[in-house]
This record gives sequence, C-alpha cells and structure tokens, in this order.
Amino acid sequence: MWYILYTLIFLHETCICITEGRYLLETKYIEVPVDHFSASPKPRFFKLRYLLNDKYHVKGGPAFVYTGNEGDISMYAQNTGFLFDIAPIFNALLVFIEHRYYGVSLPFGNDSFASSDNLRYLTTTQALADFAYTIEALRRTFFGDVLSYDTYPFVAFGGSYGGMLAAWLRMKYPYEVVGAVASSAPIFHFPGLTVGCAAFNAQITRVFRRYGGERCVRTVELGWDAVLNLSRTKLGMDFISSSWKLCKPLKTAEDVRRLLDWLGSVYENLSMFNYHYPADFVAPLPAYPVKIFCDKLTTAYFNDTKGLIDRFATALAIYTNYTGKRSCNNVNGSYEEPAEIAWSYQTCVELAMPKCSLEGDMFPTKSWSYEGHSEACYERFGVRGLGRDWPAMAYGGKNLRHYSNLVFSNGLMDPWSVGGVFSNVSSTVLAFNITDGPHHVDFRRADPADNNYVIEARRFHVRIIKQWLNMV
Amino acid sequence: MWYILYTLIFLHETCICITEGRYLLETKYIEVPVDHFSASPKPRFFKLRYLLNDKYHVKGGPAFVYTGNEGDISMYAQNTGFLFDIAPIFNALLVFIEHRYYGVSLPFGNDSFASSDNLRYLTTTQALADFAYTIEALRRTFFGDVLSYDTYPFVAFGGSYGGMLAAWLRMKYPYEVVGAVASSAPIFHFPGLTVGCAAFNAQITRVFRRYGGERCVRTVELGWDAVLNLSRTKLGMDFISSSWKLCKPLKTAEDVRRLLDWLGSVYENLSMFNYHYPADFVAPLPAYPVKIFCDKLTTAYFNDTKGLIDRFATALAIYTNYTGKRSCNNVNGSYEEPAEIAWSYQTCVELAMPKCSLEGDMFPTKSWSYEGHSEACYERFGVRGLGRDWPAMAYGGKNLRHYSNLVFSNGLMDPWSVGGVFSNVSSTVLAFNITDGPHHVDFRRADPADNNYVIEARRFHVRIIKQWLNMV
Repeated sequence: MWYILYTLIFLHETCICITEGRYLLETKYIEVPVDHFSASPKPRFFKLRYLLNDKYHVKGGPAFVYTGNEGDISMYAQNTGFLFDIAPIFNALLVFIEHRYYGVSLPFGNDSFASSDNLRYLTTTQALADFAYTIEALRRTFFGDVLSYDTYPFVAFGGSYGGMLAAWLRMKYPYEVVGAVASSAPIFHFPGLTVGCAAFNAQITRVFRRYGGERCVRTVELGWDAVLNLSRTKLGMDFISSSWKLCKPLKTAEDVRRLLDWLGSVYENLSMFNYHYPADFVAPLPAYPVKIFCDKLTTAYFNDTKGLIDRFATALAIYTNYTGKRSCNNVNGSYEEPAEIAWSYQTCVELAMPKCSLEGDMFPTKSWSYEGHSEACYERFGVRGLGRDWPAMAYGGKNLRHYSNLVFSNGLMDPWSVGGVFSNVSSTVLAFNITDGPHHVDFRRADPADNNYVIEARRFHVRIIKQWLNMV
Repeated sequence: MWYILYTLIFLHETCICITEGRYLLETKYIEVPVDHFSASPKPRFFKLRYLLNDKYHVKGGPAFVYTGNEGDISMYAQNTGFLFDIAPIFNALLVFIEHRYYGVSLPFGNDSFASSDNLRYLTTTQALADFAYTIEALRRTFFGDVLSYDTYPFVAFGGSYGGMLAAWLRMKYPYEVVGAVASSAPIFHFPGLTVGCAAFNAQITRVFRRYGGERCVRTVELGWDAVLNLSRTKLGMDFISSSWKLCKPLKTAEDVRRLLDWLGSVYENLSMFNYHYPADFVAPLPAYPVKIFCDKLTTAYFNDTKGLIDRFATALAIYTNYTGKRSCNNVNGSYEEPAEIAWSYQTCVELAMPKCSLEGDMFPTKSWSYEGHSEACYERFGVRGLGRDWPAMAYGGKNLRHYSNLVFSNGLMDPWSVGGVFSNVSSTVLAFNITDGPHHVDFRRADPADNNYVIEARRFHVRIIKQWLNMV
C-alpha cells in the first residue's frame, strides 16, 4: 500500500541513509536462505539487512522487533519513534528487519526483478520465515541461547503491511514473539472477508469531507472530469502538463491514465498522512494536509476548467512540493521503481486488496474483480497468483479467536482502517481504535500536538506489552 | 518412521485396496497446487486422494480429519478404528487425507521420484497446506460455507508422523481445526531438543527386556555378531541366506549392511507393534510379538553360531511370515519403494531424527551426527537439507505454551514415545501417557483384550474433543 509513495522518494531525491535521521541505528546483515522451505543442490543465501539500536538495552530486557514493510527499512525505523520512546521503559533492544526484495535486501542483487523466476521467492511465507530466522539468530547472538524464549522475549511491531506481518508472525511463529502490536494493519482487506471493494475509497472521501468539507469533495470530483475533458486535445494536454509542471508532458491515453492513477494516490496518501503536525514520512507535509489541500481548492471556479486545473496545481503542490524545491512532477516514475515492482508483484501473487469506486465517493466509478486483477497481473508479470482465497487460507481470514497476544490499532480517519480489526476478539486478541487517527499515527514519536486519543493508544500498547512480558 | 514397513507390504504382496478392509470408505480426489506458496506462469495441480465415510454423519456434526502419513492412506484408515468407534457419538463425518508423494497422490505421477527437482515439493509445509486446502474445500462442499468455522468444526487426528502433522496443522492453521489429537507423535525427536540420539534404541531394548527378559536382549546382541562373523566367508553368507530364506542371497558387504539394517528395523517394528492382540497393520502379527519372538529365541545355544542363526530364522518368521505364505524374504526391496524414497527424502530435507546406539542397548554401537546424516543425504539425493535447526524454527521446538487444543498421547512401551510430549504444557495443551502402550494403540478400534490404560486414553480423547466442540 506504500508503493506509490516511492514515486515521491524518487522525486525528492531524498537520501535515506541508514545512520542519518533522528535516530541512530547500526546497520547489520544476516545471511538468510532464498528459499526457506525446500531443498536444492546448492542452497542460495542472501544478505538481509537489519538495523539495531542497543542504547536502551539492559541485560534481561526484551527485544522489540519491527517487521519491515514494502520499502527501505530505514524510512520505517526513522518514522517509528514510538519504539524509541518506550524502549527505556522496557530496557529494550530495538531491531528493524528489512523485508526481502526491498531496500538493499535483494535475493538476486540487481537481477531480483529481472524475471518471474527471480521474483518467485517474494512471498509473505518466505518473509515471515526471514523474520523468524533472524530472531533466532539474534537470540543466539545477544542472549547466547536460541531456546531462551521466555527469558529473553521478543515483541513484534509493525505498521500497515508491516503490521500485517507482525500479526502473522505471532500467528504462525508464536514461539518467536510473545506478542505483536499491529498498527493500521488491514488484515481483513481481502476478497471474501466482507470488506467491500468500495470501502477504501469511500473512507478517503469521508476523510476529505471531514477535513475539507463537502465543497472540497465536490471539487475533487470535478477535477477528474476536468483532466479527462482537457486531455481530449493536444492543447489541453499541454495545458495540464504545464499547469501541473509534469516532467514528462502528457502525450498518450496511457499517460493520462497514469496521471489519473497518480492523482488518486495523492488523495490516498494525503488522507493516510493527515497527521496533526507537520511530518516528513514519505513526503514533507504540513499539519492536516487534507485540510490545507482543500483550502487551496475551495476558491476554484466550477465552470472554468482551466482555472480549476490551475487551482489543483496549487493544491497539489502541498503534497508534491511542500518544500518548494522541486522543479517538476514525475508522475510516471514509480512504475519502474524496484519497490513498486515488488509491491505490485505481491498484490498480484498474494495480496489482492479489492478497491473500487461507487457513485457517491469522490473517485471516478471503477469496478474491481479478482479475475480482472488476475488478468492484469498475468499481463504484467507473466504469472498466476495464488488465488482469490489464498490470504484467508494462509492467515485465517476473520478467525482470530484461536490466537493470543495480538493488538490491532486503527486510526479511524485512515483509509486502511476499513480492512482492520476493529473489535476485541478475545481477552488476548485486542483492538484499539483511535478516534480521528490517520495511518499508524500511534507508532510515531510523541509530539506536543498529540491528542488524547493517540496518547491513550500508546498507553494501551505499553500496558498490554507489560502484560505479555509479565511486568504487571 | 514407517518406511521400513513398506518392505513388508511389498513382500506380502498385500493388496491395499481402498474399499476393501473392515471399514468402507469412498475414494475421492481433489486438485491441489503442487506449490501452494509461490506463483508460476502455469501453476501445476495434482490429484490428492482422500477417503470419506459419511455413514455416521448427521448435519450439524463435525468432521474428523485424519492427516495422512508416509504411506498409502487406506492402510491408515483401516487401522484407525478409533475414529469409526467414536464417530456415532459425535455424528461425525470421517475423512482420511493422503499425504502428497505417497499412495496414489503423486504430484508428477510416476516421475515424482525421478529427480530432486520433482521431489522438492515434498515438504511438511506443502503437506500441511494440502490439508488446509482440502479442509476448506470440504467445508464448502459439505457445509456450503468456507467461513463456517465454528458451525461446522473440523478436528484433526493423526498417529506417528501423521500425529506430528495433525499437531502442526492445529499450530499453523488453528482456524481449520478446532483441535488435534496426536497419538505417538515424536515432535521433540529433533536435533537440539534434548532427546538424545540414543534414546530410541534404548527404548526398543527396554521393550525387549520387559517382554522378553534379559536373556532375549542378550541373544539379540549375539545375533549381530553371529551375522557379522559368518558373513566373513562366502560359505557363511550362503548359510545365512539359506537359513533366513533371503530372496537375494548375500554376496557383498553392502548386502550384509542392508541385512543388518533390516534386522534393526524388525526389532523396531516388533516393539512398535507389540499390541496385546493379533493385528495386521503393516504385517500380520500375533499378540505381543516381542514376547513370541523372544520365546522362539530363548532356546538358542550361545556358543553355536549356526544354531543361533537358525534360531533367529524361526523367531524372525514371527514377523516376516506369520501367515506362512511367504517363500522368501526380500530384505533389499524397500530401497526402491516409492514410499521409502519419499520418506528418506523427508528425513534428509526436514525431519532428521537422531538415532544412535550406545553400549548397554541391544544394538551394535553406532554414532549419529547431523553432518554425517547430511552428507549421506547429499550423496543419495543430491540436495542439502534445510538444516539442523529447521524443525525447531518451523514448529517451535519445545515451546508449545502459545498453542491450544492439542492432545499428545504416548504409549510408554513405544520406541517413539521418547520424542513425544509427555506432560501437560497448559490447560489446553495436554499429554496422556498410556502405561504399557505400544505405537498409537489408542487409535486402534476397541478390542476385548484392551487394558484399562488404553480404554482410559480413548475416554480422555472423547472428553477433550467434546470440550473443543462445546458439547460439555
């Protein structure tokens, strides 16, 4: 769900250097098998990266392990200040493990994305085994005994897709981690699990309505038509290209399609990262970017298409160029980004999360079917996915009652919350819903502007983790 | 652990026909993916066999699923009378699912064993996914709703390796089965899990001492030397070949080595199947075959090597030719048997169960190391296994406290009991030890000769299963 964000990192030419940023972390590597599950004449290994901070660690304290997402692990480490905030309470070792095929953890180096043969080990099953394997190695390294599960407990943390993995790690390897805190993890967002495909975009619309008002929603709706109408002529395309400072001017219908996709992803990201203070997660943004975006839009003249496009240009700059340093917008860039290829592959093979748009939300009407998704995937990657029912079979769908020590937190103003676990399943599988919360806001460091809801969420996490660690 | 038994099936030329035997079962097939976990341009499927009995099934009743072993599923179905005995109590549907690469469930047909490439999908990870996949399909077929986990519960059962799989199925896919009863499942019999390599053979010795007396143990010890000493000359080899009615007379040192391996496996099987009544699981045997075997041996003259060999011939016939129908003994046969190849491959890739012999047990001294095992495997199959620590990482080693609804039963006179779960781990992970019990005796049908221990074990299972099904 982050893939589109990589466009921005790329565009910003931001150096995500490991030891830079607010938090100091040591870079480490571990050799892990490319294929954990089957034998071969000459087993291949590759270097999986993990980042380590032992500043707060005191012998006897636990290890907190962040299970990496679909991107460079350092970005997630730098934006998960919550773990650094609470590490001193627990004397915890902090470890952030990169997900295979992302960042520098490439099983086949630069050829990792070259063929479907090389991509075939990019699965959640293998990724979870990487985490288990690394945890066992860490336990041996730091604690001298791989079997000291109780004496030296590990706790899993993850946000978004990383949160899904943290939960699944606890579910599939409960002996490796005593519990998992999964923030904004849409583990129910799969076909057949009762989350309708329209829920996601309806929720984005709700966020825009809440923070920008009905007029903003209406203007966003008009924006799609404005782009489509103007794009019918070369002159119109030139106008948009110039107004929106596109690095590559629109020329083909495919260019227009990608621009519309990009526009949709901007709305998705604005609502996900609608934090209550300026933040720089995947792009530098002001506080409440949805509100700011909508403020810029509201003076638009509805009956002046070009004027509307120009208004959008100003509003979009909130997202694309808040720091004012960018000369043009590369809306095509993401399609060749390794992280985007990897994530698209994952959505094709395992993680098909249905998204469609109905009348009434602020997106152009769009249908979704597993078959259509599957066909597009076959066209792009030349492989058939594991099937519509795979995630439910692999991870149990909505049947969480057999598990224990899981916390699912949701920001109720996060589009991904629609696929989250909203209510307690048992006395040890718990949900915490953050009123007004955007995407895994509870995993960010404490901020003076934090409202009571997010403060309470973090307190909740600390209390439950203490229970898992028998500290209460 | 059954692989050697296939020798016997082969030798006996027994037809293991599906619809024959005491219990009537319908043969069914389901198309399952050869590789459940990764994508390919053209996913391959194969027919997995399962056997069904709906005679006792009443709508609303659960399904009892036997997770198949390293062999033809019909043999296990016919020898798991316990399920047929208790099905009426629960109105249960009975399903016996064959394990991939055994019986007729061959992913690449007759080529399944032709190369390490074709064997690579023979893993517990894939086998468990087969079971989960089949259960979901059955739920859909019989109950019309794949998500009705609570309304239409499945319970897993398995003995020996099948018991390991039943337990692991519950551990990895707890939403598919509400609980698992694992009989004689040595899930701790892996490197690093504190079961010493000598424990297994020491336990066989204990069984022989218990049922045959010290003199029998001493005679068995002499038997090894007798074979080795006579085998030094062609005349001696001819003598053994004739005395023991070997189909292929001994000629080479390798022939002698195989004969000794076979002899060891006979002792293993006699002690595993030392049932208290005549039984025909993998070979027709009298009640207490260890006792009968030892009775035949005890008149041996210790100082007469040839006389000793002849005595062994008579005693071994208890095992090899109880029905008197066999003309010769094929001690080499098993090496090319598909089931033996498959099981050897599994012990090489994942399931390295350490076995050695020390002074004091009735076997020739023999060491064991993972490295030696691994080298022999590489020589035979051309692949490297998943490593010494694989089973612990994959299935949690001795850390079972995070799981629920597991019953492990052990026959305390079963050699495999040394790797079993002996004591309760929690209020829902339970052990039941059957005094004097051989290999999964509790899973056999009720017999008038049953002692109180096995009767109590079966009562225990029924009581716990009722709890899982909320019937109490």
